[in-house]
Amino acid sequence: MHILALSGSLRAASINSALLRAAARLAAPDVQVHVSSSIGRLPLFNPDLDPAQLSTVSALYAEVQAADALLIASPEYAHGVSGAMKNALDWLVSFEPFVAKPVAVLNASPRAHIAYISLREILRTMSAEIVEAASSSIPSLGAHLSEDGMVADALVSQAVCQVLAALQQAVPPLVTDPSFPLSPSRLPP
Amino acid sequence: MHILALSGSLRAASINSALLRAAARLAAPDVQVHVSSSIGRLPLFNPDLDPAQLSTVSALYAEVQAADALLIASPEYAHGVSGAMKNALDWLVSFEPFVAKPVAVLNASPRAHIAYISLREILRTMSAEIVEAASSSIPSLGAHLSEDGMVADALVSQAVCQVLAALQQAVPPLVTDPSFPLSPSRLPP
Repeated sequence: MHILALSGSLRAASINSALLRAAARLAAPDVQVHVSSSIGRLPLFNPDLDPAQLSTVSALYAEVQAADALLIASPEYAHGVSGAMKNALDWLVSFEPFVAKPVAVLNASPRAHIAYISLREILRTMSAEIVEAASSSIPSLGAHLSEDGMVADALVSQAVCQVLAALQQAVPPLVTDPSFPLSPSRLPP
Repeated sequence: MHILALSGSLRAASINSALLRAAARLAAPDVQVHVSSSIGRLPLFNPDLDPAQLSTVSALYAEVQAADALLIASPEYAHGVSGAMKNALDWLVSFEPFVAKPVAVLNASPRAHIAYISLREILRTMSAEIVEAASSSIPSLGAHLSEDGMVADALVSQAVCQVLAALQQAVPPLVTDPSFPLSPSRLPP
């Protein structure tokens, strides 16, 4: 299973990005978590532009299309979703492979809940399939753990593993169409 | 009085941008409304970057600093504030001249109220001074009026003029310090 992880912060020391990198290290052997670097390179969303002509948007689209599920962690800036995250989502609003994609939404700062609620509202409006069992507040991050610290921390690593397992459960099973043996596909949700 | 107008849409045919350009034309002779083009040129917000080293961010800062008040109109994308608008606000979060600046928030799509509420929450969190008497839903925009149509439309032009008058009333009076005759300044709010 391929999970695309999207961080809403471009800060090098971002706790959200560290959490997603930790998830990539904690994932089971049959689960690949790819932390996207596309978000920070996107142009500002402009409906007049053709995504096919923009290499960074095309790269994000390819990542989303190839992913079985998404894992999102985004900071709260001034009680709102970060502009960088919202900008990426604006580009994905009309992107068909995003629709019904299983999405887990992590909250790395449980006290910052206003942006978390907004983010979920936006994702629902975009017809993402928010996987409740895989969407959670991650404990202990108030201690400003590093990526290594998160991997080593029993509470955090357990919570992350539970998130990944729940997300894996939400992905429809892989089926192979016998008439197209080289093109395995997933059952529609 | 100088009003800086910020549109959250980069679309050429944006109804929000048209509304702000119409406001610039409808303003009283002693009120200048400048529709900013900085937002669309900003990099994605990254707290690791130094705003002083970024010409586009510096340009936005100079516009905000020079303005007596702000006039904001922003679309709703997927029940959220547009990424472009939120990105601009993220850059302004720690910018001192933004604090206590009188701000009018227009809603060009009255049925799209979720992003409008989010935007106001974000602005309040940033310690902007939202001028309620100047913040309103503009009628008749469902008819997709052009800028010219808005200027010509009695209901729209009347609503815009009321907004500008209310915003003007909210700006502290200009005082001239006799010891600094060349540096007029405004009373603190």
